[in-house]
Amino acid sequence: MTQPNAVHDQRVGVWFVGARGSVATTATIGALAMAAGLAPRTGLVSELPEVAVAGLPPLEGLITGGHDILETPLAHRAQVLADSGVFPPALVTALADELAAADSRIRLAPRLSTQRESAQAVEQDIRAFREDNDLDRVIVVDVSNTEPPATQRPELDSLAALEEALDAGHAPLPTSSLYAYAAFRAECPLVSFTPSPGATLGALTELAKEQALPWAGRDGKTGETLVKSALAPMFGTRALKVRSWASYNMLGGGDGQTLADPRAAVSKTTTKGAGLDAMLGYHVEGPMHIDYVEDLGDWKTAWDNISFEGFLGTRMTMQFTWQGCDSALAAPLVLDLVRLTARAHERGENGVVGALAFFFKDPLGGIDHTLSGQWRTLAQWCENLGASA
Amino acid sequence: MTQPNAVHDQRVGVWFVGARGSVATTATIGALAMAAGLAPRTGLVSELPEVAVAGLPPLEGLITGGHDILETPLAHRAQVLADSGVFPPALVTALADELAAADSRIRLAPRLSTQRESAQAVEQDIRAFREDNDLDRVIVVDVSNTEPPATQRPELDSLAALEEALDAGHAPLPTSSLYAYAAFRAECPLVSFTPSPGATLGALTELAKEQALPWAGRDGKTGETLVKSALAPMFGTRALKVRSWASYNMLGGGDGQTLADPRAAVSKTTTKGAGLDAMLGYHVEGPMHIDYVEDLGDWKTAWDNISFEGFLGTRMTMQFTWQGCDSALAAPLVLDLVRLTARAHERGENGVVGALAFFFKDPLGGIDHTLSGQWRTLAQWCENLGASA
Amino acid sequence: MTQPNAVHDQRVGVWFVGARGSVATTATIGALAMAAGLAPRTGLVSELPEVAVAGLPPLEGLITGGHDILETPLAHRAQVLADSGVFPPALVTALADELAAADSRIRLAPRLSTQRESAQAVEQDIRAFREDNDLDRVIVVDVSNTEPPATQRPELDSLAALEEALDAGHAPLPTSSLYAYAAFRAECPLVSFTPSPGATLGALTELAKEQALPWAGRDGKTGETLVKSALAPMFGTRALKVRSWASYNMLGGGDGQTLADPRAAVSKTTTKGAGLDAMLGYHVEGPMHIDYVEDLGDWKTAWDNISFEGFLGTRMTMQFTWQGCDSALAAPLVLDLVRLTARAHERGENGVVGALAFFFKDPLGGIDHTLSGQWRTLAQWCENLGASA
Amino acid sequence: MTQPNAVHDQRVGVWFVGARGSVATTATIGALAMAAGLAPRTGLVSELPEVAVAGLPPLEGLITGGHDILETPLAHRAQVLADSGVFPPALVTALADELAAADSRIRLAPRLSTQRESAQAVEQDIRAFREDNDLDRVIVVDVSNTEPPATQRPELDSLAALEEALDAGHAPLPTSSLYAYAAFRAECPLVSFTPSPGATLGALTELAKEQALPWAGRDGKTGETLVKSALAPMFGTRALKVRSWASYNMLGGGDGQTLADPRAAVSKTTTKGAGLDAMLGYHVEGPMHIDYVEDLGDWKTAWDNISFEGFLGTRMTMQFTWQGCDSALAAPLVLDLVRLTARAHERGENGVVGALAFFFKDPLGGIDHTLSGQWRTLAQWCENLGASA
Ligand SMILES: NC(=O)c1ccc[n+]([C@@H]2O[C@H](COP(=O)([O-])OP(=O)(O)OC[C@H]3O[C@@H](n4cnc5c(N)ncnc54)[C@H](O)[C@@H]3O)[C@@H](O)[C@H]2O)c1
Ligand SMILES: NC(=O)c1ccc[n+]([C@@H]2O[C@H](COP(=O)([O-])OP(=O)(O)OC[C@H]3O[C@@H](n4cnc5c(N)ncnc54)[C@H](O)[C@@H]3O)[C@@H](O)[C@H]2O)c1
Ligand SMILES: NC(=O)c1ccc[n+]([C@@H]2O[C@H](COP(=O)([O-])OP(=O)(O)OC[C@H]3O[C@@H](n4cnc5c(N)ncnc54)[C@H](O)[C@@H]3O)[C@@H](O)[C@H]2O)c1
Ligand SMILES: NC(=O)c1ccc[n+]([C@@H]2O[C@H](COP(=O)([O-])OP(=O)(O)OC[C@H]3O[C@@H](n4cnc5c(N)ncnc54)[C@H](O)[C@@H]3O)[C@@H](O)[C@H]2O)c1
Ligand code: NA
Ligand code: NA
Repeated sequence: MTQPNAVHDQRVGVWFVGARGSVATTATIGALAMAAGLAPRTGLVSELPEVAVAGLPPLEGLITGGHDILETPLAHRAQVLADSGVFPPALVTALADELAAADSRIRLAPRLSTQRESAQAVEQDIRAFREDNDLDRVIVVDVSNTEPPATQRPELDSLAALEEALDAGHAPLPTSSLYAYAAFRAECPLVSFTPSPGATLGALTELAKEQALPWAGRDGKTGETLVKSALAPMFGTRALKVRSWASYNMLGGGDGQTLADPRAAVSKTTTKGAGLDAMLGYHVEGPMHIDYVEDLGDWKTAWDNISFEGFLGTRMTMQFTWQGCDSALAAPLVLDLVRLTARAHERGENGVVGALAFFFKDPLGGIDHTLSGQWRTLAQWCENLGASA
Repeated sequence: MTQPNAVHDQRVGVWFVGARGSVATTATIGALAMAAGLAPRTGLVSELPEVAVAGLPPLEGLITGGHDILETPLAHRAQVLADSGVFPPALVTALADELAAADSRIRLAPRLSTQRESAQAVEQDIRAFREDNDLDRVIVVDVSNTEPPATQRPELDSLAALEEALDAGHAPLPTSSLYAYAAFRAECPLVSFTPSPGATLGALTELAKEQALPWAGRDGKTGETLVKSALAPMFGTRALKVRSWASYNMLGGGDGQTLADPRAAVSKTTTKGAGLDAMLGYHVEGPMHIDYVEDLGDWKTAWDNISFEGFLGTRMTMQFTWQGCDSALAAPLVLDLVRLTARAHERGENGVVGALAFFFKDPLGGIDHTLSGQWRTLAQWCENLGASA
Repeated sequence: MTQPNAVHDQRVGVWFVGARGSVATTATIGALAMAAGLAPRTGLVSELPEVAVAGLPPLEGLITGGHDILETPLAHRAQVLADSGVFPPALVTALADELAAADSRIRLAPRLSTQRESAQAVEQDIRAFREDNDLDRVIVVDVSNTEPPATQRPELDSLAALEEALDAGHAPLPTSSLYAYAAFRAECPLVSFTPSPGATLGALTELAKEQALPWAGRDGKTGETLVKSALAPMFGTRALKVRSWASYNMLGGGDGQTLADPRAAVSKTTTKGAGLDAMLGYHVEGPMHIDYVEDLGDWKTAWDNISFEGFLGTRMTMQFTWQGCDSALAAPLVLDLVRLTARAHERGENGVVGALAFFFKDPLGGIDHTLSGQWRTLAQWCENLGASA
Repeated sequence: MTQPNAVHDQRVGVWFVGARGSVATTATIGALAMAAGLAPRTGLVSELPEVAVAGLPPLEGLITGGHDILETPLAHRAQVLADSGVFPPALVTALADELAAADSRIRLAPRLSTQRESAQAVEQDIRAFREDNDLDRVIVVDVSNTEPPATQRPELDSLAALEEALDAGHAPLPTSSLYAYAAFRAECPLVSFTPSPGATLGALTELAKEQALPWAGRDGKTGETLVKSALAPMFGTRALKVRSWASYNMLGGGDGQTLADPRAAVSKTTTKGAGLDAMLGYHVEGPMHIDYVEDLGDWKTAWDNISFEGFLGTRMTMQFTWQGCDSALAAPLVLDLVRLTARAHERGENGVVGALAFFFKDPLGGIDHTLSGQWRTLAQWCENLGASA
């Protein structure tokens, strides 16, 4: 894969919101391992020829940093993940120095007395990161814990109203949206890997446009929803009527614990459920649960039961079990999204990037939920990006 | 869906090789039930707008007939299938007269002293069927039992050599190919719903060209292979490396019994296995079995275990179970293929129709094994057919 | 199987609370079908030699009746069940007269102004049934809808307090307990096939003792809990540590609809969960859901995922899927329990019959939750009953 | 658990045939780890109170040795197993010295010019092991590769005939039986953990009796067959008719490779299949496969599909998936069997020990295949052994 030189030399910063979490840690160590030639590039969509054609910034040029509310050293978090099988323990040892360096670029999440002040502190941290590390651009990636859906408020609908509320010392923004605000103010594209409100509020989409920044979201599509987006079109194009589709998910880990809170889970089950009806063209019944099962850790286990009807009303069943390592599935997508969003930024795209729907449970700016359709859209977009280089 | 009048008035004959088998019986009763408004059109791909746009002959105009080596009345076979849950028993009672009429159009398979004579007898039966029933065209559909692969012989490679061998009283043709030969001689398009050699021999593809006839094959894609063609691209486009893919199939019924013979099973496991490597671009290991389990009857149960590797070498697993009624899945495809092949014939297409790959395990004339790609190809072809009407 | 004559001549009445429900209807038609020689005795534990040895009343002598709040004819309910595959439709036709007769013995559940009056009306209906049909004894079987757990009240703890409250015109009893009260007053043994409070209240166990009546409960063990009671001892006796056991259940039908109400579901998930910890000797984590999925009807589908740890801490997994017809699993147990409780009554046993634990999710009077241990206890008890004949 | 002192002081030797294989290596490192307090005793049946009551020799007094045809150092084999997740890699480092010592006690399997000479060499190695290590007794455990069933020969039926054949320089014995012969000659009890012929030949059971030695077999019950022996009685005691039971097994590793050879697999599928019919009392149809899938390594994955019939002929289905680590399941049983056989030897038992059926797929000397029945027999036997101490 030959890429234009300009692109190859790029230094792209990745600013993680939730930089000490499972996904961020796995993405960080993975980028380091692959840059050092210690691991193959399995799982990276951006290494497939159809996507690499876009002319993406190299993995070797990625520099990570970010915010977190925890101070656990990155190497410690990495060791825990390695022990539970997310990646080989040998990597933690081999990359000890690099992890320490990455650790030193993580800042404690600012919690000042007003949202205005906090947002400015976040913005300054990001700007400092870009300057200190001599980066061409920084992509902010939200991989912190899932928040409940935002409640409707007029301040969230227009940028003017929002600025006014912030000036008045109010705190109208959900945390994920506060980070989105700061990212855009710092002139950084944003990737919303969580189902949290983030940049989806009217005031923030307005800000992104004003700043001419691209952003993408939301909620990385890594497990059961991924399988659904591959399977549901099979039923649709074969004219088989899905009678019910039950989805049972279990996982432990930090994300599992958060989702054990029903208010947070609403965001997730909403983004997970959206696609099925859209793909099939009618409403499909069926229970959907996400249960916290501590002993499973990052190893999500899901079982789906699909009851469907065929010719002359005959009823049939398909079931599947998915046993995937959540962080190992998420981390490469995060790197893919960073590279693709960086390229979009470089090419001057702005607003929500619908062509990245392939990566998301709730594909903002895209209407196609089928994996194959999203793949074609992505490949086409990458070809265009490459051609325009 | 408005269709050109000419098409709506068409009377299309369906000549089943294996007319008293499970698939043919289910297709026959299904066509009758839907024409009579006794059943919805679930499972018929040809009723989806993207396909109907081609301007297809109506179900109401389909007339069935065919050859079989058995003389069991169709109503009897239908009752057995209904009792085992393939379709509602009420249909057998309600359609008693229509089934008797269909039964009267089935002929005993001719077995004369030479293949030349047998072929002529088959041809005459088909021609008589067309004339007696005042049909615009007849589509021959092979749904008889699966044969072993053909052994290489020079007589099978060119039409001239074949004719010479037949003239000399030799019997070089596998049975499925003898039917294909007769079909083409009778100026009928052919649909090979089985994995048998059929028209794939050089001599016969030559004959189809000479007669300017379209034909399609082979081996209806109804179960595990269908799911594979929907799922494998997910692993591919997500850059997940499939380490092994095990496929275990059980079924009873006539087809199960045939496939319990390892020689016949070779044809099936070959067509079933072909696509996976093609879709992924590398060879995937894994056992594949088709076991005869009498008690399951037409209800095929399959279990697949997919072991795959993601980011940083992490190993994960997906399993699925498929519990489908084989004949209920196959019968609507047979009707779809008849309607589409009739339309192709009407439009003057000839040779193998690669655009029908969507329906087949071993898609002749097509190179794409992904279900979504095949669907797009089909929809595009149908749009063209419709436009050209 | 030779049985003492006295027993063979017995006429035993079965009084169903919920006589028009799925379980009662299936048990009624099943008893009729087997008595008439129209169906084999598959599924009847009481026909196994180890149990039949007790000298049980014959199926031919069972007469059914009962209460329900609905008036749908039994034949109609039976037709609906037959259409959904619970039993062969042919039985409904063949047994039309017998079903009509059974129907005529069902009474509308009395709902008078006080519980005292309602209880007396129930008692009178049962007594009339016994006399009109010249029955040796009547077993009351609760197969009505599941109720929430009873709230603690002093009137429910002692018989004297209960009688006083009823005299005072109060309504302290849950419906299932009101039926239990009336059954005992009518001198009838009781079988609690539901998880409802029934006779488990102090006042009622006292009444059963006073009336010297045997009773048994509770909550028929037919699906996932049955499998658990067979599997959990395997982990226990192999010293494998169960880390989590997740239980997901889906069903439609009347029972599914009731259990969709979280208050009723509590009774069920409590009785379902009780045994696992008892069998393993430690607490096992894991989600347990019962979801109403209308399209499944009586066909319950359950998936369990068991994560366990073996030698040197190695983690392993077992999963199972259960696709069972709930009423077809429950109905024979109801007949078994009637025959066994009738025999216990004849032999003068009283109080809760712990030896029937084999049949229940929440085995009252028994402490062993393992299926094999319960089976041995049952077989031993039956041998004793037989010997004492 | 208090045990008589005499027992506590015992030094028991374990002589592995196949000492460098997966099972032997895992058992060796496990015994060392537990003796050193580095691992809990999960998975050891001999640590459950019902079994420990027998007064078993302590794990701390076990000394391992054995024969193998390979010379790979034990620590190397252990590292490979640890890397594939069979046990924690840290154990290999922590126990490096102990593993080296165990390694030094393994001898190359003698292959001399006659079976007589080979047998004598094996015998001498075992005797030397006992003397050099000052052991109270040595238990020989066959964990080498599975052999095909033995062909019938008169020399194998009587000890006299066998001795004569060996004297004549003939080689009538399968390898596993040659080891059994040498073990008995060396006055050692034998545990046959494989399905190979071993001591099951007439001549060898005679020799065991003559030497007054206990022995036990055969084929450790660790996976699907274990589950069958827990589940099949559920169907039996519930009077549910099993219509078919399909068993699909996949595994990699050394054992998987051996079983990919159909001749060796016969031994395995025979011992695996035996129990089901015995437990249910009738013949059950269903395919059984063991497939070699390299990428799975020691992680056996099995899927079983059970089709059964209940009340009024209703058909239902149960499926299970088993994902177990074969060596981690087998190794503790090996240690259990060594301790129990040592105790039987000490108490003077001789001939095949039927009370150990709990541990075997093909329980020699036992007729009960149900896990619960085997467990009761084992517990009773242990209680007797303890009482007699
Ligand atoms: N893993 C997947 O497959 C997957 C897929 C889709 C979406 N996601 C989403 O990605 C997110 C991260 O998942 P995870 O498994 O890494 O979770 P995690 O709990 O391991 O990590 C979240 C991190 O966010 C930090 N955090 C919390 N509040 C913060 C704040 N106010 N500011 C900065 N940091 C904060 C936490 O301290 C923690 O380190 C979740 O929202 C999850 O739903 C994950
Ligand atoms: N059902 C599916 O899902 C499916 C999918 C793909 C392919 N197929 C193929 O379709 C074919 C039919 O399947 P089925 O289940 O109906 O099988 P079946 O055994 O019920 O029917 C086959 C029929 O062919 C007849 N026959 C045999 N030899 C003949 C001959 N020489 N001339 C005429 N008739 C002959 C038989 O008598 C029988 O009636 C099989 O080859 C099967 O592999 C089926
Ligand atoms: N089917 C099983 O496998 C199974 C197993 C264990 C327990 N159970 C229990 O058995 C019970 C019956 O199950 P089902 O599937 O037949 O349910 P169902 O809803 O089909 O039947 C219940 C019947 O009870 C009647 N009823 C309700 N209130 C009543 C009242 N006050 N007096 C008299 N009748 C009343 C209803 O009208 C209905 O006809 C449920 O409680 C269920 O939990 C069933
Ligand atoms: N792991 C389980 O769950 C399980 C269960 C039941 C039975 N078994 C049986 O246990 C046996 C061992 O399984 P494994 O996984 O350890 O296999 P393995 O292939 O890893 O080990 C077998 C060892 O035997 C050695 N060997 C071969 N021929 C020999 C000979 N003539 N003399 C001495 N040593 C010889 C091999 O070199 C190898 O080291 C197999 O027969 C298997 O069927 C295993
Ligand atoms: Na079939
Ligand atoms: Na092994």
